[in-house]
Amino acid sequence: MIIIGEKINATRKSVRSIIQERQEKALASLAKDQAEAGASYIDINVGTGRGSAADEIEAMKWAVAVVCNAVDKPLCIDSADPPVLEAGLSALEGRSAMINSTKADEKSLGEILPLAAGFGVPVVALAMDDKGIPETVDGRLKACRMIVEKAREKKIPMENLFFDPLVLPISTDARQGRVTLDTLAAVKEAFPEARTTMGLSNVSYGLPGRSALNAAFLQMAVYAGLDAVIMDPLDEVMMDAVRSGEALVGKDRHFRKYTRAFRKKAR
Amino acid sequence: MIIIGEKINATRKSVRSIIQERQEKALASLAKDQAEAGASYIDINVGTGRGSAADEIEAMKWAVAVVCNAVDKPLCIDSADPPVLEAGLSALEGRSAMINSTKADEKSLGEILPLAAGFGVPVVALAMDDKGIPETVDGRLKACRMIVEKAREKKIPMENLFFDPLVLPISTDARQGRVTLDTLAAVKEAFPEARTTMGLSNVSYGLPGRSALNAAFLQMAVYAGLDAVIMDPLDEVMMDAVRSGEALVGKDRHFRKYTRAFRKKAR
Repeated sequence: MIIIGEKINATRKSVRSIIQERQEKALASLAKDQAEAGASYIDINVGTGRGSAADEIEAMKWAVAVVCNAVDKPLCIDSADPPVLEAGLSALEGRSAMINSTKADEKSLGEILPLAAGFGVPVVALAMDDKGIPETVDGRLKACRMIVEKAREKKIPMENLFFDPLVLPISTDARQGRVTLDTLAAVKEAFPEARTTMGLSNVSYGLPGRSALNAAFLQMAVYAGLDAVIMDPLDEVMMDAVRSGEALVGKDRHFRKYTRAFRKKAR
Repeated sequence: MIIIGEKINATRKSVRSIIQERQEKALASLAKDQAEAGASYIDINVGTGRGSAADEIEAMKWAVAVVCNAVDKPLCIDSADPPVLEAGLSALEGRSAMINSTKADEKSLGEILPLAAGFGVPVVALAMDDKGIPETVDGRLKACRMIVEKAREKKIPMENLFFDPLVLPISTDARQGRVTLDTLAAVKEAFPEARTTMGLSNVSYGLPGRSALNAAFLQMAVYAGLDAVIMDPLDEVMMDAVRSGEALVGKDRHFRKYTRAFRKKAR
């Protein structure tokens, strides 16, 4: 499983201050802690929803430089704003990365796919269009098909698409958990070379016992074909769920990761 | 989820004594405890692998009478031996039940399906034949097809078949977890009216952290289409897994079971 560490996200208040005040040490710690806990990618989202576009571009450049200096992991440049993505990608200095994210609308695809093609990096592709998140598997798959078509035009290799089937709270519509999982399975069937990802904590919104629900949903997603997950790698419940899930579906050769983690905890 | 309480099984040493010594109170307690914990069916297996066939028939009659007297739940008459099954079914006195189990071989089907048809009860149908448990999804599905064919000849309604895709330890073959789950999904697709069941603790045999692995496998199976599970209803980890699994795939209307259990624990 590819673990995309989600902690550097300026929508979280404590992170917002770190970024606005350019607290280099604190940002580096966030990156290091996630890398040590097992993150494969470090996500960087500096969008506060407040500052100007120019502010965000400067913040992204700074954050990319700090994180590249702190850890040797690939980055996940996270923004809905193409100039911010471009600023982040341009600041990489050879570090590999992925883009998070595009959706299936003309404007987003027209601006973001050229960045993915130009920088030769994977891109998270959301199963939604300009009208929002479709309620059905067919609707979400249709959005994915549109992205595939445009990606092919740009000669983006299929394995550089990470489809996110999108997770809605089951508390508002109990069918949505299954819609997400079935979309995931349908994407893997329709585009076997493409990869899949999701951030899944939304699923339990509004219900008690969220941590266990999120872990259970992750297990199901591992069976449905999840390749990458956007999560907090310091969350041991979720990391255990990744390891046991992969062990159960034969993705952990000789159970090395599973048993190693188990022995570590037993100490 | 139909919970088949597995605790009354004479292969367990403590239960063997209860049955051999005809400890009525102790057997009744085992039944009551499971019923109170949420069992839908109480499984009864009196096979010690030691006594004579006549002993086992007498033991089954006694156990059925005691359990029928102790709780008002349906029974799951569990034996590989048709005369023992018949003795148990004949002792029901109107209580509903299911048979556990037949496999896809001529002898087993020829003796057990007539009992299922004659008593009008569901039967657990193991996805294996006279050569053992097939290693592949196709092999197991073929066994299920043979059972369906013979069941149709006997006019057994499809919903009275509970297919068990069978669970092997992943520690000896890491692919087997996925084979079980994919067989489950394939059975639901091939025979949508049929139902599915399994006893899943085998999956984690030989690995550490078995309880969490079993719970994770159960979650995956809930997504793959599991209708019934043979388990210990007093195992809170597994019961939580059932409830969160069903909540996530939209099988718990208004999240009543999930939130009720959660509130109960919070007290």
